[in-house]
Amino acid sequence: MLHPDRLFPADPESRNIARRLYAEVASLPIVSPHGHTDPAWFALNEPFADPATLFVIRDHYAFRMLYSQGVPLEQLGVPRLDGGAVETDPRQIWRLFARHWSLFRGTPTRLWLEHAFETVFDVTERFGPDTADAIYDHINTCLSRPEFRPRALFERFNIEVLATTESPLDTLEHHGTIRQSGWKGRVITAFRPDPVVDPEFEGFAANVGQLGTLTGENTATWTGYLAALANRRQFFKAAGATSTDHGHRTALTADLSRAEAEQLFGKALRGVATPAEAELFRGQMLTEMARMSLDDGLVMQLHPGADRNHSPLLFERFGRDKGCDIPTATEYVSALRPLLNRFGNEAGFTLILFTLDETSYSRELAPLAGVYPALRLGPAWWFHDSPEGMRRYREMVTETAGFYNTVGFNDDTRAFCSIPARHDVARRVDCAFLARLVAEHRLDEDEAREVAHDLAYRLVKRAYKL
Amino acid sequence: MLHPDRLFPADPESRNIARRLYAEVASLPIVSPHGHTDPAWFALNEPFADPATLFVIRDHYAFRMLYSQGVPLEQLGVPRLDGGAVETDPRQIWRLFARHWSLFRGTPTRLWLEHAFETVFDVTERFGPDTADAIYDHINTCLSRPEFRPRALFERFNIEVLATTESPLDTLEHHGTIRQSGWKGRVITAFRPDPVVDPEFEGFAANVGQLGTLTGENTATWTGYLAALANRRQFFKAAGATSTDHGHRTALTADLSRAEAEQLFGKALRGVATPAEAELFRGQMLTEMARMSLDDGLVMQLHPGADRNHSPLLFERFGRDKGCDIPTATEYVSALRPLLNRFGNEAGFTLILFTLDETSYSRELAPLAGVYPALRLGPAWWFHDSPEGMRRYREMVTETAGFYNTVGFNDDTRAFCSIPARHDVARRVDCAFLARLVAEHRLDEDEAREVAHDLAYRLVKRAYKL
Amino acid sequence: MLHPDRLFPADPESRNIARRLYAEVASLPIVSPHGHTDPAWFALNEPFADPATLFVIRDHYAFRMLYSQGVPLEQLGVPRLDGGAVETDPRQIWRLFARHWSLFRGTPTRLWLEHAFETVFDVTERFGPDTADAIYDHINTCLSRPEFRPRALFERFNIEVLATTESPLDTLEHHGTIRQSGWKGRVITAFRPDPVVDPEFEGFAANVGQLGTLTGENTATWTGYLAALANRRQFFKAAGATSTDHGHRTALTADLSRAEAEQLFGKALRGVATPAEAELFRGQMLTEMARMSLDDGLVMQLHPGADRNHSPLLFERFGRDKGCDIPTATEYVSALRPLLNRFGNEAGFTLILFTLDETSYSRELAPLAGVYPALRLGPAWWFHDSPEGMRRYREMVTETAGFYNTVGFNDDTRAFCSIPARHDVARRVDCAFLARLVAEHRLDEDEAREVAHDLAYRLVKRAYKL
Repeated sequence: MLHPDRLFPADPESRNIARRLYAEVASLPIVSPHGHTDPAWFALNEPFADPATLFVIRDHYAFRMLYSQGVPLEQLGVPRLDGGAVETDPRQIWRLFARHWSLFRGTPTRLWLEHAFETVFDVTERFGPDTADAIYDHINTCLSRPEFRPRALFERFNIEVLATTESPLDTLEHHGTIRQSGWKGRVITAFRPDPVVDPEFEGFAANVGQLGTLTGENTATWTGYLAALANRRQFFKAAGATSTDHGHRTALTADLSRAEAEQLFGKALRGVATPAEAELFRGQMLTEMARMSLDDGLVMQLHPGADRNHSPLLFERFGRDKGCDIPTATEYVSALRPLLNRFGNEAGFTLILFTLDETSYSRELAPLAGVYPALRLGPAWWFHDSPEGMRRYREMVTETAGFYNTVGFNDDTRAFCSIPARHDVARRVDCAFLARLVAEHRLDEDEAREVAHDLAYRLVKRAYKL
Repeated sequence: MLHPDRLFPADPESRNIARRLYAEVASLPIVSPHGHTDPAWFALNEPFADPATLFVIRDHYAFRMLYSQGVPLEQLGVPRLDGGAVETDPRQIWRLFARHWSLFRGTPTRLWLEHAFETVFDVTERFGPDTADAIYDHINTCLSRPEFRPRALFERFNIEVLATTESPLDTLEHHGTIRQSGWKGRVITAFRPDPVVDPEFEGFAANVGQLGTLTGENTATWTGYLAALANRRQFFKAAGATSTDHGHRTALTADLSRAEAEQLFGKALRGVATPAEAELFRGQMLTEMARMSLDDGLVMQLHPGADRNHSPLLFERFGRDKGCDIPTATEYVSALRPLLNRFGNEAGFTLILFTLDETSYSRELAPLAGVYPALRLGPAWWFHDSPEGMRRYREMVTETAGFYNTVGFNDDTRAFCSIPARHDVARRVDCAFLARLVAEHRLDEDEAREVAHDLAYRLVKRAYKL
Repeated sequence: MLHPDRLFPADPESRNIARRLYAEVASLPIVSPHGHTDPAWFALNEPFADPATLFVIRDHYAFRMLYSQGVPLEQLGVPRLDGGAVETDPRQIWRLFARHWSLFRGTPTRLWLEHAFETVFDVTERFGPDTADAIYDHINTCLSRPEFRPRALFERFNIEVLATTESPLDTLEHHGTIRQSGWKGRVITAFRPDPVVDPEFEGFAANVGQLGTLTGENTATWTGYLAALANRRQFFKAAGATSTDHGHRTALTADLSRAEAEQLFGKALRGVATPAEAELFRGQMLTEMARMSLDDGLVMQLHPGADRNHSPLLFERFGRDKGCDIPTATEYVSALRPLLNRFGNEAGFTLILFTLDETSYSRELAPLAGVYPALRLGPAWWFHDSPEGMRRYREMVTETAGFYNTVGFNDDTRAFCSIPARHDVARRVDCAFLARLVAEHRLDEDEAREVAHDLAYRLVKRAYKL
């Protein structure tokens, strides 16, 4: 089912070059510095539930496509917040999914699932209504076996390090369990402070209060609040974190006076900040986080541009992260100026930028990353984590920022079994891009080989200090 | 002149796949759900005038290119509103056009005209100054023959259904004539309410008054106005319409209270709405139209983003649709929210979105269409109805929205003889795109064959209920 | 080192076509209508200093990339405004540059430098740490020989005409020296009035005063100011200029009443114009410049969209043009309307538009240039003056504007030795694009040959009246 030449160019000369480059990187370990897998999987090492839970119910790429064609999320087993009835028979969900499989033609979801079916579960028939039951039974049986438990898969996937993402309020209990278990798998956390730095996050004031409790700081004051954040960053760092992650609506940063920041913080805590003030406060907190990064060495990641929960109906019925976050135009040049004026020229600080707005690649991000020592560009992200998306990324970024202001791939996924597939797609697409450069005599093959290795393995380790 | 492999990839393997896919769809009937041909042609079935009128004087793609290089529109026979002198000898216009034919190198106009010359008129010489007279004479002779009258061409073009576009104030007389004539050609209308829902349209208040007269409703009141629109939609539906079409400047929608909407309507009628109020009223009317679509089942089309009549000089001298409408950046995520919050999750409602701003394909449109059941994406439109434009559309839309949230091709043209050419270009470009997916082992060829058929024929029938 | 097929498509059929097309244009003379070389080079004809000065210290493409990876500009010999210590040994700079050479993989800087090394200096080893010293010595020796002086290289590069860019306050002394020297090389100037039309330019009022002194006009009055500008344009024209150049932050134009313009000018002179008023004044001056172009026939160029000196630290330490100008989103449709309403339909006037915002190619620029007789599109510019950038430019511009509303290539460079390389890249990329059109049967090869010649030579001469 998986062709060895998939994603390589059709032209024989370029294809041969791509094959050779890919052969060098195909089996390199996976370094996954940013993602949303559940640390409990590796702490508890319990079996995964069933094929529908593993591949459909928790994967918004999967169920949003069926929903877009009129399939109610309830029929796909997505839990309702009000506890209303949803389909609970995983086999029925699986069959429904199989009947709509043709919707995924030409999408990365198709590539990821076929890769997981074949490489993880040895399924070699084509998925569809006719084979759904047999494949369901086969995967289901696999899942009950020890070699399909999370830790075994982690090892089989050849993962060198895997980062999860947690709130500052998280106890990191599962990460502790993993470390104390004697298991050698390296699962680390990343510090995602949105719940305590975004005045519009649900329960912001209570979250800040809890932050105080956890750290013993008086988070009712600006000084105590900053100290608590620094303290919590240390706690995360001690649990292995090498990075922070910031999921803001825009890339706005600010560099306010202490008095202004303090006043804004007060308004935010009292719940009286206007939307503009909340935005300004988030911007200020990015600059504060950058300042703390200079102190503690955590690498900073900024993922702006998603208009979250676009449909109130879906949000009220099913909650967050249900496939209804929509990208918007995102400006970087003005937005980042305050932070960059302060810290952009610091070679000891790293800010990794992502975008959902491809227009910013060649216009803003590559020119910025091509000059500021502190900036690096994250890989093609989310809706662009796909063959065409990755190709456009390389074509639009490389000429101005080069390869070495980028940081390799990250999978950003909660779908554990798709991790090898996603890294494989990235390696193949990068090799295909490099093969074109070689075939067009824009790069020598020995150099391309080194770049392929950098993109697959070395750059991510260096950028994330792994 | 027309090479059988035109628009297919040059790589032999991909080209062979493209050939096989195209062979499956090349002769499928044409379904044209959106266009601007003149229903009088099919009602009266009179001969077309002459080559210059057919191919130059009425085709803004043709004359705008010559105008851009300094050829006055008067010399191209484009009528002046003030009745001022323009060239009236079609042969002179034709010769002038032929002398500038090289301007069209690399443009779709060149592809369309060569296709029409060869497939409609059996012209196999290359067009240019040396052949202009002979080709003129040949086409002119053809046009006098019965097999080149509109109905005969309609049949020869293998058009299964053709939609025209009319104002709500239109009597649809020609459509009536066609239906009563016994001729089997299916020519339907589409409901384009811009003249009665846009307060800035010339004669808006008078148009609304006329709408009242036509329907027997009191359109001086909000209630009567809405009733009149619903009534007129029914009238169009009875004449075969399956869709409405909305040519707004932006994609803004609104969901106002009844009192607010009523007040805005009053201002619009009295001609005292500010530009912002006019824009808000148009946005409200999109939501009203969506509501009516849920009632009567007409599919809704939104074509935003053109800054119409950019040059006052051209507008005052020659009027609308003279090649001086210019695309602008168009935002969808916020703009559509009010309408989508109301109706976006309704699987029984269809809103087909178009854009002139390619940046929205991967950033906004595909993510929106990939989740909302009510949304579908129209094909690459207007300036993007071209090989490169269509390719970019598939590359940027497919990975997030799939193929099945798109609706096949439409030609959107008033140039009747270019219809087969335009559909042929779309089929070829889609087959070329699919061939690349197959050659890169991202899709199996049997699936690609099914998708090619869907894109060329089945999707458009389903989306437009034809 | 330089492969004869570089930048051609890998597919053998397309590559063969590209080879044939390129063979027709490879040795055509270079016409360079816009750039920033120093006229003193050709007036004084002194030897170039050393390899580091020639290729690194003055080339912001080169040193910005190393800076982005943490190399201080001081170590690269970039002079500090405060006279602070910087590296002064060119060999050390050269070695440092060589150690970071891999950063340029996939960038146009790599292509330009390798081309210069091999074609100008006969270097055929690969550049890098191991060969840095030998290459340094070799180039250094070359530079001391008469055939590597500026005029000899100018002739060897087969430059038919080269334009530099000067301020209206410049005496054009070097251009005078060149003309009087008896040397046949055609080096002309271009009129860049930013220092006297931008109220936010350093020393604006003093500059306007100096303009008055130079011209004998009373530039304290609006009338005198306009007369002085017209006078100075004549002075430039007499020194060979055929064009003006305008480096505005946005494309805003204005068409104010005389009274409004006069009042704005007064505020600008007194230093009390707000930023919005300064912007409006710049916009008005574009329209004034267009009016003067109709009188004196100078072709007008508009280069908007750079956010200059993004990092205050770099600006304060090293000054302008140090690689920290960042592109921003740029709007044209509304911004140009005032100017186009006045002069856009004048076939005798030419406004050449550039952009740093590729999203405007297909959405705004090609549609505008495809209808207004006065508009032409400049080539892919600055960060987009690269293989991928040029390819996207042709793919996004050609279908709507054709080839003949573009003006051929210009190098816009201060790096003299890169001029042949840049023109060679442009010719190769254009031939590769044309080869694809031919291979896909969208253009006949004889036509493509003519277009290749037009793009490489004829269009630029026509557009710039050279």
